[in-house]
Amino acid sequence: MRKNSKAAIMDAAIYLFNTKGFKGTSVRDIAARANVNAANISYYFQNKNGLLENCFTVFFEGYLDELEKGFSSLEYGSEYCLNQMLGNVVRYQCENIQLTRFILREMTIDSQIVREIMSTYHVKERYMFKKVLEAGMENGEFKKHSIQYTILQLKGLLQMPFLNTQYVTEVLHVLPHETYFADKYSHELSNWIKGILCTEQPSHRKILMTI
Amino acid sequence: MRKNSKAAIMDAAIYLFNTKGFKGTSVRDIAARANVNAANISYYFQNKNGLLENCFTVFFEGYLDELEKGFSSLEYGSEYCLNQMLGNVVRYQCENIQLTRFILREMTIDSQIVREIMSTYHVKERYMFKKVLEAGMENGEFKKHSIQYTILQLKGLLQMPFLNTQYVTEVLHVLPHETYFADKYSHELSNWIKGILCTEQPSHRKILMTI
Repeated sequence: MRKNSKAAIMDAAIYLFNTKGFKGTSVRDIAARANVNAANISYYFQNKNGLLENCFTVFFEGYLDELEKGFSSLEYGSEYCLNQMLGNVVRYQCENIQLTRFILREMTIDSQIVREIMSTYHVKERYMFKKVLEAGMENGEFKKHSIQYTILQLKGLLQMPFLNTQYVTEVLHVLPHETYFADKYSHELSNWIKGILCTEQPSHRKILMTI
Repeated sequence: MRKNSKAAIMDAAIYLFNTKGFKGTSVRDIAARANVNAANISYYFQNKNGLLENCFTVFFEGYLDELEKGFSSLEYGSEYCLNQMLGNVVRYQCENIQLTRFILREMTIDSQIVREIMSTYHVKERYMFKKVLEAGMENGEFKKHSIQYTILQLKGLLQMPFLNTQYVTEVLHVLPHETYFADKYSHELSNWIKGILCTEQPSHRKILMTI
């Protein structure tokens, strides 16, 4: 029972933060939408800020898990590994589309919590991307690139359809909440890896080189 | 004198919207920072919403101008033209980095004004990108691609460093406000066009084909 009401509070909060903004949402609004007593919210999250922190933590713990799962396949080659990492993140963001949108928007603001998130989760993320890119450049799978600018592009591609769902849906008529989107977009990112990062060698050679 | 105070009001508003948020900023705050009387703000912009609308209009008129300038070079080939369009936008966004950041963030919210902007400026933008991409696919400069997904990637790359300045500066140590950034990033986008869109032909052949 308690577990359900915790989840219901989170869902209600994410919905309201996305539609009315964090500042425009009161604890009372959240309680009403989640159909719980406001005291429940205090019990689980203390206050609205506690809820916000929980949103960040839940999102980034899951996000980093997905990256790490992909990263653990580095021994099979950098192209393969990067494809796994990006595919996992795209699927994760599709499955948590409301939370993702809210968090990505919050991350564009200069606040204390954003600084903390960056110095923990984003630094770990950068470490993994850097390792994969460096390994690929060393073993000849990838062309020489600026690591920073490659991560910059990667991050831009990963967030675009989730942060700008309105634009993507209404101007481009691409629907990120549809089930096929994760596959389609992962395929686009896969082409990006091939076109931007990879050297011209046929892929079976690459695998041989990493063995 | 009047013109200066109008510009001062805009500058103050953009700064405060970026740091305190639109809702967290009062007309009185703006007047104080711009060192003008609050009545001046009413005179030029009616109210805070008028100021917000003006921010959108100023930004997107300039943005579209830059795209159009680039678009007018389509006769010289699609790769050349797209490079001009992207280079112009990057330079424009660098020159108006505070306004760009604010507008890009506002565009992620689902509001009446955002819908209006999308149905005018973004539809025009999509039209131009579509024309350039189609022309390139027809004359053999570009490989066959989904127009929508290509625009999706393009837009993601164009906004990333300006929307996520905090992340880009503090995690990647890339400084979008430095003067060399516009050139460096335009060069990255140029590589993106080559790696993702272009067919393998040497570029002198491409130019011959379009003549």
